[in-house]
Amino acid sequence: MGEDLSDIGEFELVRRLLGRVPTQGLVLGAGDDAAVLHVAGDVIATTDLLVEGRHFDFAFSSPADIGHKALCANASDVAAMGGRPRHALIGIGCPPSTSVGTVEGIYDGIGEAARAFDIVIAGGDTVGADQLIVSIAMLGDVGEAGAVSRAGARASDVVCVTGELGAAAAGLWLLRAASTDPEARALIERFPELVAAHRRGRARVPEGQAAAAAGACAMIDVSDGLLADVGHICERSGVGVLIDGHAVPIAAGVRDVEAWAGREGIALAGGDDYELAFTIDPDAVDHLTRAIAPTELTVIGRVVEGSTVEVSGAILPDTAGWDSFR
Amino acid sequence: MGEDLSDIGEFELVRRLLGRVPTQGLVLGAGDDAAVLHVAGDVIATTDLLVEGRHFDFAFSSPADIGHKALCANASDVAAMGGRPRHALIGIGCPPSTSVGTVEGIYDGIGEAARAFDIVIAGGDTVGADQLIVSIAMLGDVGEAGAVSRAGARASDVVCVTGELGAAAAGLWLLRAASTDPEARALIERFPELVAAHRRGRARVPEGQAAAAAGACAMIDVSDGLLADVGHICERSGVGVLIDGHAVPIAAGVRDVEAWAGREGIALAGGDDYELAFTIDPDAVDHLTRAIAPTELTVIGRVVEGSTVEVSGAILPDTAGWDSFR
Repeated sequence: MGEDLSDIGEFELVRRLLGRVPTQGLVLGAGDDAAVLHVAGDVIATTDLLVEGRHFDFAFSSPADIGHKALCANASDVAAMGGRPRHALIGIGCPPSTSVGTVEGIYDGIGEAARAFDIVIAGGDTVGADQLIVSIAMLGDVGEAGAVSRAGARASDVVCVTGELGAAAAGLWLLRAASTDPEARALIERFPELVAAHRRGRARVPEGQAAAAAGACAMIDVSDGLLADVGHICERSGVGVLIDGHAVPIAAGVRDVEAWAGREGIALAGGDDYELAFTIDPDAVDHLTRAIAPTELTVIGRVVEGSTVEVSGAILPDTAGWDSFR
Repeated sequence: MGEDLSDIGEFELVRRLLGRVPTQGLVLGAGDDAAVLHVAGDVIATTDLLVEGRHFDFAFSSPADIGHKALCANASDVAAMGGRPRHALIGIGCPPSTSVGTVEGIYDGIGEAARAFDIVIAGGDTVGADQLIVSIAMLGDVGEAGAVSRAGARASDVVCVTGELGAAAAGLWLLRAASTDPEARALIERFPELVAAHRRGRARVPEGQAAAAAGACAMIDVSDGLLADVGHICERSGVGVLIDGHAVPIAAGVRDVEAWAGREGIALAGGDDYELAFTIDPDAVDHLTRAIAPTELTVIGRVVEGSTVEVSGAILPDTAGWDSFR
């Protein structure tokens, strides 16, 4: 880890990074002004920036964790359209004093996630910056049933969520407290999967495709927090949602973290779980549950006339979700 | 300019930004997890990050200049493939204390450049960061003649460049000195187009398409400096290039700036001109010259056996081109 980027320069860095990620299958690959990709019809496109100190912290996550999470955050957006992620462009900004090993580690994590989802890294840019930034743009194929927007929810739908919520947010609470609070350290030992959920990204790619194929009407990934994200569906669809607070699937250990933190509602307000929330005809739920097993599918509420998210039977969190500037 | 981003928050900011850029013609546009684009065959894809203090400086450029330049830098990469830029994704990172007017200004510049090239803004992400970052990913159509890589140069080709070189680099030299050097201020008054060339981006989009249609064998945009960029063609094509230093078209005023700075070779080493350099059969030059008029086309050298760029009749600059980490 002795070498830093100013020792090897941009071109040698790019050479070392390209071997760490899948780059096969392009019409024209790295080393040119741009890449050329073969695509199969209309394209899903999204971009996400992750910034050191805001979206990740090297005290809590390894470089590979950060790269993995950055790629998954984008793949999750494609999954939330019911699409299949295919290609990514990677922009990295970092101080010239950054160790080569750190950037290689980020690329190792990107490569691991890319291979898991069969995503090809089509190109990128590496530039100097005061803090580490990972900027990814991702392209995907639209599924056969078409893209699932946030705008299609109907008052006869139920609201479903994949997996369990709250783990990533609870893990981050524990990591932030661990250096000074022995109780937090004990909870980390007892529930290591909470910390793992914060560190590693997730993207429910086959689940999103299955939900689209089963007729999901409106879908979103839970990145800002369940209430905020279901609120986005309400706003875009012109509907209300009633959530049964008791039905929301909460990851093991989250209740213990809430009790330790003296704070309720982590599962409803915590972001970064990258589960999918969607609305669908109630008759389609049984079939879809079998289709995505062993990933759990839970009906947590229903779409109603109105414009807001209401939650019964749960204490509400005191924040409505993530805002980049507040 | 009184409001800052922490006053209005992310969602209101996005609402204000979207009205400033062209967003028509998408299958599914802003406000969802991802956009859906209609594309016509294989896709050219590229990404570029511009970072405050490294690629731009608010002391020298307006927010609109910066947005304009960021979009053009990406469009220029698509142009260098002979392609037509179609869609862009915009990632902005900035401190929450940034004035709303600054980010709106960046988007105004992006919108101006996007309208000039008929590019649709398909989506984006706005996040907090310690310094201002503009990260753009751009998609384009491949031209009928196919994408022109850097790898196709043949020993019978001549080397051509569009327009004139050195203006952007000379303009930046003047801007950096202007606060303390009255001679620099006098040169700025005499050659305002040098400063304008630094501030505003350029992308030789129709020229790149015409060069591809005329049979250009290898092409690159001059963003790192002519010698460095022609060197990339040599490396990728496995050829050498002889440049006639007297033939290189140099922008008006650049010689005066060289004399003032006591530094030769600004036109050969200075980046950010976003002209196109390409190799082509000598018999195709006359036709192409007429096709891209009034943009000038100049034969500056020829492709030879070998692996390096050699320049006759000019004093060489003391740096080989831009490296992000050196």
